[in-house]
Amino acid sequence: MPGLRRRTYEVLDMAVPGDRSGVLVNGLLMALIVLNVAAFIAGTVRSVEARFGAELWAFEVLSVAVFSAEYLLRLWSCVEDPRYSRPVLGRLRWAGSFMALVDLASVLPFYISFLGLEGRLDARVVRVVRLLRIFRIAKLGRYSTALQTLARVARAKRAELVATISLIVLLLVIASSAIYFAEKDVPQTQFTSIPASMWWAIVTLATVGYGDVVPMTVAGRIIGGFVAILGIGLFALPTGILGSGFMEDIQRRRAEEAERAKAAPPAVCPHCGKELPKT
Amino acid sequence: MPGLRRRTYEVLDMAVPGDRSGVLVNGLLMALIVLNVAAFIAGTVRSVEARFGAELWAFEVLSVAVFSAEYLLRLWSCVEDPRYSRPVLGRLRWAGSFMALVDLASVLPFYISFLGLEGRLDARVVRVVRLLRIFRIAKLGRYSTALQTLARVARAKRAELVATISLIVLLLVIASSAIYFAEKDVPQTQFTSIPASMWWAIVTLATVGYGDVVPMTVAGRIIGGFVAILGIGLFALPTGILGSGFMEDIQRRRAEEAERAKAAPPAVCPHCGKELPKT
Amino acid sequence: MPGLRRRTYEVLDMAVPGDRSGVLVNGLLMALIVLNVAAFIAGTVRSVEARFGAELWAFEVLSVAVFSAEYLLRLWSCVEDPRYSRPVLGRLRWAGSFMALVDLASVLPFYISFLGLEGRLDARVVRVVRLLRIFRIAKLGRYSTALQTLARVARAKRAELVATISLIVLLLVIASSAIYFAEKDVPQTQFTSIPASMWWAIVTLATVGYGDVVPMTVAGRIIGGFVAILGIGLFALPTGILGSGFMEDIQRRRAEEAERAKAAPPAVCPHCGKELPKT
Amino acid sequence: MPGLRRRTYEVLDMAVPGDRSGVLVNGLLMALIVLNVAAFIAGTVRSVEARFGAELWAFEVLSVAVFSAEYLLRLWSCVEDPRYSRPVLGRLRWAGSFMALVDLASVLPFYISFLGLEGRLDARVVRVVRLLRIFRIAKLGRYSTALQTLARVARAKRAELVATISLIVLLLVIASSAIYFAEKDVPQTQFTSIPASMWWAIVTLATVGYGDVVPMTVAGRIIGGFVAILGIGLFALPTGILGSGFMEDIQRRRAEEAERAKAAPPAVCPHCGKELPKT
Repeated sequence: MPGLRRRTYEVLDMAVPGDRSGVLVNGLLMALIVLNVAAFIAGTVRSVEARFGAELWAFEVLSVAVFSAEYLLRLWSCVEDPRYSRPVLGRLRWAGSFMALVDLASVLPFYISFLGLEGRLDARVVRVVRLLRIFRIAKLGRYSTALQTLARVARAKRAELVATISLIVLLLVIASSAIYFAEKDVPQTQFTSIPASMWWAIVTLATVGYGDVVPMTVAGRIIGGFVAILGIGLFALPTGILGSGFMEDIQRRRAEEAERAKAAPPAVCPHCGKELPKT
Repeated sequence: MPGLRRRTYEVLDMAVPGDRSGVLVNGLLMALIVLNVAAFIAGTVRSVEARFGAELWAFEVLSVAVFSAEYLLRLWSCVEDPRYSRPVLGRLRWAGSFMALVDLASVLPFYISFLGLEGRLDARVVRVVRLLRIFRIAKLGRYSTALQTLARVARAKRAELVATISLIVLLLVIASSAIYFAEKDVPQTQFTSIPASMWWAIVTLATVGYGDVVPMTVAGRIIGGFVAILGIGLFALPTGILGSGFMEDIQRRRAEEAERAKAAPPAVCPHCGKELPKT
Repeated sequence: MPGLRRRTYEVLDMAVPGDRSGVLVNGLLMALIVLNVAAFIAGTVRSVEARFGAELWAFEVLSVAVFSAEYLLRLWSCVEDPRYSRPVLGRLRWAGSFMALVDLASVLPFYISFLGLEGRLDARVVRVVRLLRIFRIAKLGRYSTALQTLARVARAKRAELVATISLIVLLLVIASSAIYFAEKDVPQTQFTSIPASMWWAIVTLATVGYGDVVPMTVAGRIIGGFVAILGIGLFALPTGILGSGFMEDIQRRRAEEAERAKAAPPAVCPHCGKELPKT
Repeated sequence: MPGLRRRTYEVLDMAVPGDRSGVLVNGLLMALIVLNVAAFIAGTVRSVEARFGAELWAFEVLSVAVFSAEYLLRLWSCVEDPRYSRPVLGRLRWAGSFMALVDLASVLPFYISFLGLEGRLDARVVRVVRLLRIFRIAKLGRYSTALQTLARVARAKRAELVATISLIVLLLVIASSAIYFAEKDVPQTQFTSIPASMWWAIVTLATVGYGDVVPMTVAGRIIGGFVAILGIGLFALPTGILGSGFMEDIQRRRAEEAERAKAAPPAVCPHCGKELPKT
């Protein structure tokens, strides 16, 4: 059966560039994932659930059947991948990879609730994990390059982005402590503790500003003004970091192309056949 | 009549650079479009409609007459454009172009309501399409270069921007699912279903924050805090993408200018002295 | 008196680099402007006005006296500036310059209200113009370079920024028309006309989101979601434009420095005194 | 005891690169700071205070003891640092450095309230200063480079960022003055004075938009619309500035690396063969 297993691997993993059946099968799986998520969302609307409950349930069973078959086929054929070539250890390593865990998590809640274990964990909550399967879309077609660019830039600037998030957390702690001491003695205030004030601090720092919690004292409003202005700066940090990351990425790719062009054999004059000097 | 048709084409399409009458006629048409949109907007105010209803109606009839004449003249003269030179097929292709459809859509609702077909479609809604005519302004004068720059950069970064929108949609689905499960058991909650929660999710992710729907539970507020911080990152993506796009555009134009300045005399092989083919 | 006039011009216009008295006099004038604005702001608080009304009035009279003297001295001495050297025409041209008009507008309302003409225009409104005098701060000391950089970049990207504002206006018109037709039939809606809906549109596009006007229908919320996402893009445009503008500015200044360095006399070896090759 | 003092200095200041014990001790101190801040935050929640008040108090006493010991050990050993080598003057200079003052401020409130001086200053407010100790985290491990990059870029663009803040303040003053005159005659308005209107102005300029103060007149809404659009521009300035700063920083570091790679052997005059002085 290695021939069939090899073919299964090639189709499911789109391992052969230009192979149409891989794109087709993965495209159909993607469509099923999207439809399944849409059905899940629609099913939370009471009127839809009341009218189409049976149909949605049937579609859920079908989806889980297809996803389960896909999971088992991937588990069976993954040994064709050089990274997971050992029969048992390779399959275990594959099963522990991030996308395999997401695939498993997208069917497991169904079986758990089927076995009557639903009291233990809310199946619907776990089904949210199924949304992560949408990331598989990155494999399909022409948008993959763009998504890879976003991911590559975010990875290259990882440390700066983590530093930005640390700054946000620090600002949150300081802002919520300060506003709490400014507002805590107002009658019927919503700033009843620092953790409660953090809701206000994050809503203000991110410039969302629901208005459900608002400082009333002069001191609180001055603190609020500073936090709002710091919020402006907070938008500047990741933007500046990612902006320079995109520029760097473009320059690096251009340098690589120039390198490749230079490494090519030297151009030759078509008239006399002699080597031309590099420009 | 080819002479008159040629002249009509030249004036309406501003085909001859430096021809004043083309700029004048298109400027007057633009002014009429802007006034017509302004009249349409003013007409929705009850007090204005009550006092100036008749005048607004007369102006509407006049505008439609001018726009209809313009449409017919463009349809008649478009065959002077090399792209639409064939008498029937060329005119059909012109009529199917985006700007021609917008031009048609800007007068059609009037005739439809005139013919008593208004029950079929709300003429006022379709009249909103007329706003698209404002894009004609791009042809006029000195701002066209800047608008072309914006359009060129957006087109060059199309894939990255689409990837960003996909990320936004994915975040919306995840955020609204998560907040729904966190808030759905609060009495009189507005998070009654995932689609209903999406309104909250988009208002928070875009950092608008109306405050009409706000999480009340601790879990919901923690989710809300994460969504707000993700919103900051969401602003960084298109900004970084477009920022690097503008830089690339500037560098490319500068490189082209340098190329043009350099490449004036054809390159010659330094060994045999003969001209080299352009690469 | 040309010697005194020349000295007055030098001091008021800081025409001699390194002259301490020019910086001192302009610094004192700036301090008076800032204090005067602060007094104006404080005077709108009822309790402050009730207690310190007389003192604020005395300070206002003093300020106007100083500003009037400054204006007359500038008018008298401006002919020392080569641009305004002709006695009458030069002084008229100076009086028509932007900063001179601002200077005049900062004292005129006082005299108008003094002459009993206050019924004609609200003196306090016109006094807001005095705020523009704060721009004089740009002349003082080390922040002038930074403010000049901001101004130079904004000017270089003028066309793109105007194109962005045109786009904002177009989006405002389309968004407010669309939301009006979606929401106008809701009982007690605040979307009573397109102009009224524009308030919602701008508050949403700029991601402010007060929440005083909020769509209630499903169609209105879908339109609102699109407008909110377009708002994200709207922040990206000026940011990307200005970001690339700052980069260009830095590169241009660096190129100028390199040019100056190249144009300098060639470096010489300190041991043998012979010319060194350029690196 | 110089040997012990030297070792204490090396461990507390992580002065020896690659020394594990320095990283360990500072890591434990950091963990204690974070836990102490967390306990402080949790202690403001009434129910937590009621149940774990005694434990939180014991933990506070322990933390202050450790921080006091750390402070005294740093004061004792700082003379090993070449900058503070003189026994008395060096220690005084160290005690006056920013981080030493923060360290002192993080324990002082405890002793003040212990000595019954708490009436003078609210110990809890001063304890907020302890949060600044978190900045010590910058010393630990791999995020220090990223935080240094952020700090270096912010410092390099100091003048432009200060100019931006001046612009924000100027816009705030103008916007709050304008809205005050537009809205002050509305019955029960919240725009009762210019300082009161500033709360609205900052909440709108930073696009927070709580909705607790909203203009009601047409003039006020037009002013509000302009302020909201200016808010978009306000986000663009720091972002563009920091974005170009990050790019410059990257280019500078790359140029330095290239310089170092190139400049390894000292330059020699090509005429006389002698070494040239570094420029």
